[in-house]
Amino acid sequence: MDHLDPIARLLQPRSVAIIGASADATKTAGRPVSYLVKHGFSGDILPVNPKVDRIGELPCYPDIASLPTVPDVGIVLLSAERAHLALRELAARGTAAAIVLASGYTETGEEGARRQRQLIEAAGSMRILGPNTIGLVNLTDNIVLSATGALEMEHFTAGGIGVVSQSGGILGSLLSRAAARGIGLSKLISTSNEVDLELADFIDHLADDEATKVIALYIETVRNPAKFRAAALKAAGAGKPVVAFKIGRSEAGVKAAVSHTGALAGADRMYDALFKQVGVIRAQTFADLIDIPAALDTGRTLRGNRVAILTSTGGAGTLVSDDLGMAGFETPAPDGETAAALRALQTGDHAVLDRNPIDVTLAGLKPDLLRGAIDILLQSDSYDALTIIVGSSSLANPTLLVDPIKDCLPRSDKPVIAYVSPHAPEVGAALTRAGVPAFAAAESCTAALGGMLRAARFEAHAEAVDRPAGIAVDDLPSGSLDEAEAKQLFERFGMPCAPERIVQTPAQAEAAAHELGGQVVLKILSSEITHKTEVGGVAVNLTPETIGARLIGMAADVEAKAGIRPQRFLVQQMVSGGTELILGMHRDPLGTAILLGMGGVTAELFKDTTMRLLPAAGGLSRAEALAMAKELKTWPLLDGFRGRPKLDVEALVDAIVAFSQMAAQLGDRLVEAEANPVFVLPQGQGVCAADGVVVLA
Amino acid sequence: MDHLDPIARLLQPRSVAIIGASADATKTAGRPVSYLVKHGFSGDILPVNPKVDRIGELPCYPDIASLPTVPDVGIVLLSAERAHLALRELAARGTAAAIVLASGYTETGEEGARRQRQLIEAAGSMRILGPNTIGLVNLTDNIVLSATGALEMEHFTAGGIGVVSQSGGILGSLLSRAAARGIGLSKLISTSNEVDLELADFIDHLADDEATKVIALYIETVRNPAKFRAAALKAAGAGKPVVAFKIGRSEAGVKAAVSHTGALAGADRMYDALFKQVGVIRAQTFADLIDIPAALDTGRTLRGNRVAILTSTGGAGTLVSDDLGMAGFETPAPDGETAAALRALQTGDHAVLDRNPIDVTLAGLKPDLLRGAIDILLQSDSYDALTIIVGSSSLANPTLLVDPIKDCLPRSDKPVIAYVSPHAPEVGAALTRAGVPAFAAAESCTAALGGMLRAARFEAHAEAVDRPAGIAVDDLPSGSLDEAEAKQLFERFGMPCAPERIVQTPAQAEAAAHELGGQVVLKILSSEITHKTEVGGVAVNLTPETIGARLIGMAADVEAKAGIRPQRFLVQQMVSGGTELILGMHRDPLGTAILLGMGGVTAELFKDTTMRLLPAAGGLSRAEALAMAKELKTWPLLDGFRGRPKLDVEALVDAIVAFSQMAAQLGDRLVEAEANPVFVLPQGQGVCAADGVVVLA
Repeated sequence: MDHLDPIARLLQPRSVAIIGASADATKTAGRPVSYLVKHGFSGDILPVNPKVDRIGELPCYPDIASLPTVPDVGIVLLSAERAHLALRELAARGTAAAIVLASGYTETGEEGARRQRQLIEAAGSMRILGPNTIGLVNLTDNIVLSATGALEMEHFTAGGIGVVSQSGGILGSLLSRAAARGIGLSKLISTSNEVDLELADFIDHLADDEATKVIALYIETVRNPAKFRAAALKAAGAGKPVVAFKIGRSEAGVKAAVSHTGALAGADRMYDALFKQVGVIRAQTFADLIDIPAALDTGRTLRGNRVAILTSTGGAGTLVSDDLGMAGFETPAPDGETAAALRALQTGDHAVLDRNPIDVTLAGLKPDLLRGAIDILLQSDSYDALTIIVGSSSLANPTLLVDPIKDCLPRSDKPVIAYVSPHAPEVGAALTRAGVPAFAAAESCTAALGGMLRAARFEAHAEAVDRPAGIAVDDLPSGSLDEAEAKQLFERFGMPCAPERIVQTPAQAEAAAHELGGQVVLKILSSEITHKTEVGGVAVNLTPETIGARLIGMAADVEAKAGIRPQRFLVQQMVSGGTELILGMHRDPLGTAILLGMGGVTAELFKDTTMRLLPAAGGLSRAEALAMAKELKTWPLLDGFRGRPKLDVEALVDAIVAFSQMAAQLGDRLVEAEANPVFVLPQGQGVCAADGVVVLA
Repeated sequence: MDHLDPIARLLQPRSVAIIGASADATKTAGRPVSYLVKHGFSGDILPVNPKVDRIGELPCYPDIASLPTVPDVGIVLLSAERAHLALRELAARGTAAAIVLASGYTETGEEGARRQRQLIEAAGSMRILGPNTIGLVNLTDNIVLSATGALEMEHFTAGGIGVVSQSGGILGSLLSRAAARGIGLSKLISTSNEVDLELADFIDHLADDEATKVIALYIETVRNPAKFRAAALKAAGAGKPVVAFKIGRSEAGVKAAVSHTGALAGADRMYDALFKQVGVIRAQTFADLIDIPAALDTGRTLRGNRVAILTSTGGAGTLVSDDLGMAGFETPAPDGETAAALRALQTGDHAVLDRNPIDVTLAGLKPDLLRGAIDILLQSDSYDALTIIVGSSSLANPTLLVDPIKDCLPRSDKPVIAYVSPHAPEVGAALTRAGVPAFAAAESCTAALGGMLRAARFEAHAEAVDRPAGIAVDDLPSGSLDEAEAKQLFERFGMPCAPERIVQTPAQAEAAAHELGGQVVLKILSSEITHKTEVGGVAVNLTPETIGARLIGMAADVEAKAGIRPQRFLVQQMVSGGTELILGMHRDPLGTAILLGMGGVTAELFKDTTMRLLPAAGGLSRAEALAMAKELKTWPLLDGFRGRPKLDVEALVDAIVAFSQMAAQLGDRLVEAEANPVFVLPQGQGVCAADGVVVLA
């Protein structure tokens, strides 16, 4: 351990001062000392309280100045009004980090925010965990620096899952739930208000922590997206999958989160983009936040989606098979060779072994038979993973399954998980401890295997940036560009737009229509009027013969509706065929996102859009752009659905990259940008933006 | 109890014979006797086994003929080869029902199917539960007629949830899981292969059972849809909600179910329609199958969607709030009066009480304060339900919450549920037993409240049938109707179709185009060619001037592509405006369904369709037809989305009813029927079917 690193000193202190420790272990202020003692901390426990001489066996010190040694960590149990006083003294003595439990800071309003600033000022260069935190637990080294009631439990399983939570209560929840299920954790840290140390600091640290194999995050908000991205990619680079559960998915949740830790949440779907791009696996439910890491902590690799289900209870096998099927997993019947090997085990007259779930109910559940069946399924080329179903008979004989499984595990590196059908928590915990993560819900089995598949398949192409070609943009004016200027800007970055001419008179319009091939669109050209259609400022399907009269009529219409007489018009080649998409940009606390969406009113009802955050420098890569297109639910429309022509996806990818490079290069100058519609034409015919909006700062 | 009713005798026997009982209680064949004794059956336990004299304290009889009394029930533990012999003897003695545990019947293939027929024949008028069943458990009367290992548990909570499961293993799972959580059950019955007694028999019985308040079903397949519908509606009429979890949602699940109990599954989405129409609440996960009934068994009524969340741990409050929000629940902040009442409780300086979750962390969790807060929230006009969040401190003080809640419950009839954040099963069970169903997942809280809302809102309009007007159909030919005939049939039942003329020559076509107003569509008319577009047999946007030439061209095109020279053509008035829908019919083992779908390729990609099963007689009601339209995700397109005109929903409803009456009246004669597209025009302009397919037997 590097004892110059304050995070290392915080997680593995040799001495801990507890400021405001109470001698009454039933009070929150009594718990940290009581728990340190109970769970066998081997370093110095230094309670500070002027009103008490001793706490249990330990001498209690009147103030921080009297402490016999410099504590690595100070746990501050004082109220929000007084905590900063302790921080100033701890900092003065050279303490690495203070853990501040009090709430009553930014999450409560302006007065709380003032107290929070006071805290920061008092700490100086000392690091702060919290405030409003429940502390941390280091299971690897048996160090509990926390007041969570979950530490009332007697035993915890040390393991490879490092947890960082922005909620203190959730830390206790995860700690106790994992313990009850035999799931091993390495470190749990509650960061809460994150006045100093935050999510990314601990992801970064855990990426280097030898005991940690998987990182689990409970997120309310990412305060520093750039740091988060770097830390997540570091973890991915170290082969440590990161699993995150993020709340704030609904408006109610966002409001609740704000009142909880005072956090400002970005748009939830931006987190989807963020997580996807840096390989963070998003847990869909809170349960998944332990279940997926439990599976990943086995270190086994899921190489495909074919799952064998070995069961001694038909119903539950069906349940698991059904749920896996809904998530796209396959549960193929055993191949001939595998089935023959199973039959050779003499599994009874009525056992039907050419099906999956492989039901050995009738085989009487003898350990040798189970051992044989497990071995056969793990060796079979038909399967990438094995799910073992534990039935109600396990209540009569809880260890029957555990031993055969233990024997077989080392002979394969395929994932093996278990579903426990009855209420049998001891059986589940024993299996989990034996290396077979056990779940009580079919959905958990699916989530666990799904997480393993995503972890195995993540490639960090997000950060393979297509750098912009250094296109000059200094000449651009500020404010809203008109439609023609907007599309000229798109073209400057390489996005094709519909050929067009600016005209002012009917005669010019007629000439332009001729030049553009005859079939044209007429639109008013104005940076003041943004909703052209609503004021009658768009007409389609015009010809050189009809356009002159239409221009005169349109000018009158628009003047009547918008109160402005349009001076300039755009004559645009009519684009038809292909499919209409939307390319846009969205700014969010998490960063700048490029949005791709299907055009048209039906797609809008289905919210068929996808997003990617711009990397730190440059635009999106071609791989990322293609992945976006494929994520659209209407992707089949681009890919030759029902005998339609395949559309020019290559050109679409170019356009997405071009648009993203424009956004990257213009940076904060780009206030708003949308190309809508962008026609994607049949293969070889390219794409063509037919309208656009750009607002520059 | 009516002892002439064999189901009543089966569930509440005064005497039970166990055929093939083993003296070894660790064997499956030893369990039923052992469990009957262990769980204190007060009637006669009559083991039958020629090889044994006594089992424990009980005399064992050599054969059925020697039994001193006629058993109400026989539990048959013999193998599939021998079970029928016992059934014949039991039937001869006048036993009401036999429970057959052996597997090895239809689920294993043809030989098994033969054994199953043998079983039926042997039973005569005696009822059979099973085969391949694990039996049943009557918790109301403490009668366990089952071999499930779940009966190893010592205690069960009797309550109001009656369970019928088509899987035996699942029965053990539900029994043990409910017991561990303090959830009270009344009866559990595993029907499995359902050679005789089936789901509907027990739904019907439980609807009359005094102890049963809610019915929970684990379904693999509904073998007798009409009986199921009647039983479900009977339960609804008796005020007993029915909750069903059905597997076979994925292809993998369907395959697994078939191999499990030999069941033939209908299409999964047909079950959605079936359940919706008879008020069965579909559990989305297996966990929901206990969680929703647990909430309903409280007998409390949820009158709206506004939920107060009272928490002592901010993070978990946020989690629950977030999940409720995603399901459309509201978690509004306390109104002024409620907030003032909460403040008057003196909840501490930093507690912020104008927010929801209502966080009393800082109030120190004193029982009086909790009692006060719960009372205020239950009385508040702002809330329809209360969710109490139990934090990790409950591990240090498990009973702190239970007593205040118990005190407050009788003073309100609003639903109160609890979320237990740490692993604290005893706390959860204590709350549940006290009348506050407790859950360990936010999703369970949402499902429970969601189920209560659906139960409160179900109205059985499904069976309010619009009877057909007795329209004559005897004149209809067999086979495929051509397009014109199909639409004439639609019109006969009152569904408007586009005006059209049948023509054979260019001159006739020109005249027809004139008559129809000028803008027309030309299509080939042939019952042999069903895919007109693919052979070039459709042309739109034609006028009297262009139609003649186009007819000649079309005839040549179609002949070249299809090898048939079309003799007849349809000139149809061009319909435009509005939105295109599809009306269709689907036959399934569950019944005949009417399908409504949005037209167009995008909606097709999103599978935007909905279905209803035809009632036993007649077509769909107008209410049901309107509900279908509103279920479409693209419903806003009909309802004036984004300033578009509202479309003629009244006329659409008429058309759905008309189409359904046609299907009802033609019955089995109707092999195939689809109206596609059906244009729904702006309000007051009606609907108009522009094409149709009908095949008659």
